Amino acid sequence: MDRVFQYIDAHRAEYVELLRGLCRRPSIAAQGIGLNETAGQVEALMAEAGIHARTIPVEGGAPVVYGEVKGKSPRALLFYNHYDVQPPEPLEEWESDPFGAVIRDDRIYARGVADNKGNLVARICAVDAMLHTLGETPATARFIVEGEEEIGSVHLPRFVREHPDLVAADACIWEAGYRDIQENIVLALGVKGICYVELEATGANRDLHSSLGTIVPNPAWRLVWALSTFKDRNERILIDGFYADVLEPTDDEMAQLRRIAPLRDEAAQLRSYDLDRYLLGVSGVELLKRNLFQPTCTICGITSGYGGPGSKTVLPRRAVAKVDFRLVPNQRSEDILKKVKAHLAQHGFADIAVRALGNEEPAKTPLTADIVKVVSDAARRIYNREPLVFPTMAGTGPMHVLTGAQGIPTIGTGVGYANSNGHAPNENIRIADYIEGIKHIAMVLHLFAGGR
Amino acid sequence: MDRVFQYIDAHRAEYVELLRGLCRRPSIAAQGIGLNETAGQVEALMAEAGIHARTIPVEGGAPVVYGEVKGKSPRALLFYNHYDVQPPEPLEEWESDPFGAVIRDDRIYARGVADNKGNLVARICAVDAMLHTLGETPATARFIVEGEEEIGSVHLPRFVREHPDLVAADACIWEAGYRDIQENIVLALGVKGICYVELEATGANRDLHSSLGTIVPNPAWRLVWALSTFKDRNERILIDGFYADVLEPTDDEMAQLRRIAPLRDEAAQLRSYDLDRYLLGVSGVELLKRNLFQPTCTICGITSGYGGPGSKTVLPRRAVAKVDFRLVPNQRSEDILKKVKAHLAQHGFADIAVRALGNEEPAKTPLTADIVKVVSDAARRIYNREPLVFPTMAGTGPMHVLTGAQGIPTIGTGVGYANSNGHAPNENIRIADYIEGIKHIAMVLHLFAGGR
Repeated sequence: MDRVFQYIDAHRAEYVELLRGLCRRPSIAAQGIGLNETAGQVEALMAEAGIHARTIPVEGGAPVVYGEVKGKSPRALLFYNHYDVQPPEPLEEWESDPFGAVIRDDRIYARGVADNKGNLVARICAVDAMLHTLGETPATARFIVEGEEEIGSVHLPRFVREHPDLVAADACIWEAGYRDIQENIVLALGVKGICYVELEATGANRDLHSSLGTIVPNPAWRLVWALSTFKDRNERILIDGFYADVLEPTDDEMAQLRRIAPLRDEAAQLRSYDLDRYLLGVSGVELLKRNLFQPTCTICGITSGYGGPGSKTVLPRRAVAKVDFRLVPNQRSEDILKKVKAHLAQHGFADIAVRALGNEEPAKTPLTADIVKVVSDAARRIYNREPLVFPTMAGTGPMHVLTGAQGIPTIGTGVGYANSNGHAPNENIRIADYIEGIKHIAMVLHLFAGGR
Repeated sequence: MDRVFQYIDAHRAEYVELLRGLCRRPSIAAQGIGLNETAGQVEALMAEAGIHARTIPVEGGAPVVYGEVKGKSPRALLFYNHYDVQPPEPLEEWESDPFGAVIRDDRIYARGVADNKGNLVARICAVDAMLHTLGETPATARFIVEGEEEIGSVHLPRFVREHPDLVAADACIWEAGYRDIQENIVLALGVKGICYVELEATGANRDLHSSLGTIVPNPAWRLVWALSTFKDRNERILIDGFYADVLEPTDDEMAQLRRIAPLRDEAAQLRSYDLDRYLLGVSGVELLKRNLFQPTCTICGITSGYGGPGSKTVLPRRAVAKVDFRLVPNQRSEDILKKVKAHLAQHGFADIAVRALGNEEPAKTPLTADIVKVVSDAARRIYNREPLVFPTMAGTGPMHVLTGAQGIPTIGTGVGYANSNGHAPNENIRIADYIEGIKHIAMVLHLFAGGR
């Protein structure tokens, strides 16, 4: 493997430029921007690395880029990534162009560089380095790169149904992982599901003078009242039956949380957020348990009326909230959507429209799966650290549809770090993490194929 | 007066162009845009009409334009207007440039054309027509034109303190009035006060991935919970002592409401809003009583997190609400602000910042004042209709500071109509109303000086 690592070090500048090039292309699924073009660029990147790549159209959605390189061993490792990114807004909070891929302090700043283009290009580069030095990869590598992850992978289920052969694998490396604030390598074995809804209250057919506040219905008030029935101030979600299917963590999982908790520097993480304490004052094992095993009800946005400087005395015509429910086993997104609608009707808010903007199911791989040992061992070798294996993560992804339902053991690893600002302004990764991440993936392929 | 009216008709096109010219100049107090320039234009308009005009700087604020023309009678009539306008947002809902002053269907469309530039220019034109035809005005006319009405006339109290002589008058014509949906001429004798606040909840120092929703405080939730304690779903404001100083309408005022109510076409007004019913199903006398004599708590805007198309899974770093409380006699804005702050503290929301963005006190002139008869008689002569005299209006203005505290009887009249869209997109007036409004003001000056 030394030759592979030397090759990676020698091509450091080139590998950085490949990533910056991909980051310069906006690919915003929520806004339908640049998806076909970016898929084309991913296919080209793979082809140049020697991966057999093709862009597969998906009816009504963004195309999937599929890549494959046959390996020495018959074992197949699937890489799941996505080329779409979150919207860059609020633009005024970025210190450089979100699609400029500017380098400052040995970091690359760009929307999507951490989530998920950095991981994607690192994996392509790992294969590139192995093909150039070894002439082949130790195991078969497959790539599924979709373009709708940030809007709930809406068309991926159809893709999986139509192309089951492309998804077949002995294990899967999930899209992401990161170094925490103490530089611990964080690996994770599952994802939460999600039920993302947009709620809209409407009033008169136009904005009106706020002196009519005594006699004209105000949709902003309707929305506030409705939302306030969703969750109480102790963070208890009040929707009837919401917690009915929530599974408690297993004994294995709790033991793992107790192993991880002391290794994390919560105080440093809090300082980086400028916060005094976590919500409800939780910490340690309790904090991990809450974050990984409890579902959420999060207001991601509210918009109504005037939001500019100073005062405007207006009675708004509409009010919109975006709310995500992150789900844990065995909650099901369709069931939660039904319960949200029933809740609104029961509480006298049948006038509030509910639009489902995304749904995914939770998924989890057992801590005892072989791939967990492979990726952990590779991490020990590359990073000289004991990785933190999280039984699941707080984030969401289409793990259930891609590998969970097929029983393919899946683990996430990647090149982010504690201040990568995923989904937020000034998203960035450190170049050193990116280069180590390429080596880590090469080592994973090596060990996965039985290498020593 | 025939000669005056003929002159007005002959100069119809010119008077329309004067107004359009003023409307083309943005003068947005909330955003500090174009105030000095617009004051200069108002001064020039007055000077061209033969009014002695000067622009008086106001320390830290927008200048006041003062105009005066000595009349035949020693009685002085004060005109109160403002040259500032509401922000034009949301821009995408305008059918033409808010500062284009486009004419469509014999209407002028512009931000501020109804509130308040149309009334201001109509009054200047009335004086212009009288000076050109009669050589003088029947009574002394004074103009106070401020530039901060839409942000609560924050510096007008100081102006009044420093220039008491300029405000002295026997009566005052307030800035606005309108024709309702049945073309009734609406005159009004008072204003509500206001206490306008901006509430801000803050969380982490940046937007975060919404997977942290279980463990990081969400300011959008804090704000929703706080707002939901302000008012219940039956529109009862829950702030301790909020209603303590509210006066019931007098017997005279209730009698006037019973006189007005049958003359109004509520169904047509509701249709114009695309609404089925008024809030809480009120109608008739009850609706008038509620709108004119009850205070409000109105969400004018809420902004937090992502408001663009589709979904974004973000945990917002801040949430802001703009809330106006419209006040009735004898509520006081400072007292209400104190009660709002105390309410938040009592309910565990001391973390929510409260910024006062405007405060004004309610004011009212008795139905029996002489000027009420003058303006009503003038309306009967010009419009051939029995005007509807409202004991007070639901809107707000600096009536208390300008004339209320001085005991100057004050009545509002103006050129708006039911679909003028004040404070809203596509604000407009009808040109015919504007021309009749010029004649009405000329007739008011005539009758005010004892003319027949």
